[in-house]
This record gives sequence, structure tokens and C-alpha cells, in this order.
Amino acid sequence: MTGTRGRPRSEDARRAILRTALELCERDGYQDLTIKAIADGAGVGRQTVYRWWPDKASILIEALIGLGDEHAELRVPDETADVLGALERLLTATFELARKVTGQALVGLMADAQRDSNLSDRLQEAVIGPRRAALRALLQRGVDAGTLTEAVPLDLVVDFAFGAMWYRLLGHHAPVNAALAKNVTTGIATMLAPNTPGRARREIQI
Amino acid sequence: MTGTRGRPRSEDARRAILRTALELCERDGYQDLTIKAIADGAGVGRQTVYRWWPDKASILIEALIGLGDEHAELRVPDETADVLGALERLLTATFELARKVTGQALVGLMADAQRDSNLSDRLQEAVIGPRRAALRALLQRGVDAGTLTEAVPLDLVVDFAFGAMWYRLLGHHAPVNAALAKNVTTGIATMLAPNTPGRARREIQI
Repeated sequence: MTGTRGRPRSEDARRAILRTALELCERDGYQDLTIKAIADGAGVGRQTVYRWWPDKASILIEALIGLGDEHAELRVPDETADVLGALERLLTATFELARKVTGQALVGLMADAQRDSNLSDRLQEAVIGPRRAALRALLQRGVDAGTLTEAVPLDLVVDFAFGAMWYRLLGHHAPVNAALAKNVTTGIATMLAPNTPGRARREIQI
Repeated sequence: MTGTRGRPRSEDARRAILRTALELCERDGYQDLTIKAIADGAGVGRQTVYRWWPDKASILIEALIGLGDEHAELRVPDETADVLGALERLLTATFELARKVTGQALVGLMADAQRDSNLSDRLQEAVIGPRRAALRALLQRGVDAGTLTEAVPLDLVVDFAFGAMWYRLLGHHAPVNAALAKNVTTGIATMLAPNTPGRARREIQI
């Protein structure tokens, strides 16, 4: 306010806490993550952490929300020319983040949410719901442009894409990575391809 | 051994414990399920329960395995004539059981498995793996018979079907029921439909 530039010191501390929480969670797992370790890693006191957040779940949820702002590829692009390309980029970015940055936070929060309905609601409202809405909006754009058809409800297509991710994150039976994003995109493209019998009729008329 | 008929008494007790554990878990939730409540509900002493199982997770896993034997519709049928019909019946039975009988046990075990790698391995080996294998075998039968094509890897199709179920069970954003089974079947049928461009070419040749 008196000519100083840059972010205020408390904003730096907040960002350091959020970044550190995700890093330590990914390295050590959700169960072993403590407020003390987050504070130490971020170079602040525990009271500084508790001034802003009541528990680690709240820190991680805010960190996950923040990633959506930091990573442009998690947002639905404005252009509609290449919906399937945009879909693969969105899923690739989401799955690669889950593999390297957010995976332990996601499964830890989801596990705790099973015995904490308040946390379940917050996770749904802040993380799961917005990601679902973004993917659905992208698919709807393809339907509106005529490059996709709604052969099955779009909400179910969203369940296929993110369900496969969650199922693998929780069950550990197969990796969540760029190859999954590519295959999920192929599956959705095949499922929602404009009606081929219709194309056949047009070809016959020609 | 001396002319008595029927199951031995201990087998009755085992079955009562398994059935009671699933019922109480579904009614009260996994977290609140206790060995004492299971023993009381099954009409046995706690020591009888502990003689066979070390903890509630082990009881529930055995109960889930048992359901696969009790419910014929969870098994892959021998006939290959109507693979998509068999798929919808398999998914309908699985999802209806998850909605009414097994849902709380599944999410509770999955949540605990996130901080217990031994439980995670047992859940994968005893419950998730066999269900995946059954669904994959059914899809493979359709591919072998030529009524389905492998447009995307069958393992991913399994992830779509069961992933949608787990995602909804854990996230609570939409129900797991017969309507989901119907829509998942439609989605898979569309995704794995024999190549329509090929059909179009044949039509044009006619």
C-alpha cells in the first residue's frame, strides 16, 4: 500500500503451505501427513497454518482447487474446432497430475470422506463437481457442433472417464497416465461418433 | 458322522456371521460395524467369530466372495448367443447388490485399503480381480463370436463399467442401479459395435 511491490508476505506463506501439503502428501501418503510437517516444510509455524485451515483435508482441498487455476490445460478451451483433441489434452493433464502430484491427496480425501459426510460434501462441491462440469461442458460443445452425438447420456460418459481414473487410483490394478487418457478418448470418440448408419445412407444417396 | 443330516452346526454359525456382517454393515455403515454387533446378531459369542476371522474386514471379504457363489447372475453364463444381454444381466445384478447389500462393505473396505496395503492386496485378489476377470471373459466371448470388436482394450471397457460403479458409490453424485446397468451396456455396445463403415461399404456394394 506504500509502494511495495509483489505479493504480500502472507500470500507467499499461503502458497508455500498449499504447495508443500501436496508435495508431502504425494511423497509420504495422506495418512502420514501432519500439520507440523507441512508447517516445517513451508517454513512457517503451526499456528500460521491453523490460522487459515482447521485440518489437512481443508489444506489439500484448497490446493486441489488452486491447481485448476494454475494449469491452463485443466480448463475447457474456448475453441470448439477440435473437441476430441481438447478432450485428450484435458484428460492427459488430469491423469498426469493424478499420477505425479494429486493422486495421494485424492485417494486420501476420498477414503476419509467415506466416514465424514461433511468432507464428502466439500470434496464433491470443490473438486469432483467442478471437474465433472468442465468435462461435461466440453462434451456438450461437441454435441452442439455436431461432431459428437449423445448416444449415451453425457453424465455417464463423464462417469466412464473419471470413474476409470478413480477406480485405478484406488484399486491400483493399472496405471493412471497419458496412455489411459489416449485410450479413454478413443473409447469416447467411438461411443459418441456421429451415426454411421446415417452416414451410410448419405453415401448411398450420392 | 453318526447319522445326523444337514450342515454341521459350525457351518450354520459361519453362514449366519457372514450374512449378519453384510446386513449390519449396510444398515449402520462400515465404521460403526463391530465384532460384538456381528456376534450378537448372529447369535454366537465373540470368541466364535474370532476363531475364524481376525477382523471385520476379513469377514466382509469372505461374505463378498460368498455372494458370487450364491447369485448365479453374477457368474458368466456358458452361452454366447446373447453377449450383450448377458452383460446387462451381470451388471444389473452387480449394481443392484451394490445398491442394497454390498455398497457399504465395498466403500468401507476400499477406504481402509488406502492405508493398509495388505488389505488392498486381499481386496484386489478376492473381490476386484475376480469380478474384473469375469466381465472381461464375457466381453472376450463377444469378440471371439464376432458380435463385438475390440475397438478399445477390453481391460479399459472393464474399467469403464466398474469404474462408473465405484466412482458413484464413493462420490455419491448419482445412483448405482439397474438404469446405470442399462446405460453402461448401451455405451459398451456402441463402443464395441462391429465396424459400421464396413457395413456401409457392403450396403453400397449392394
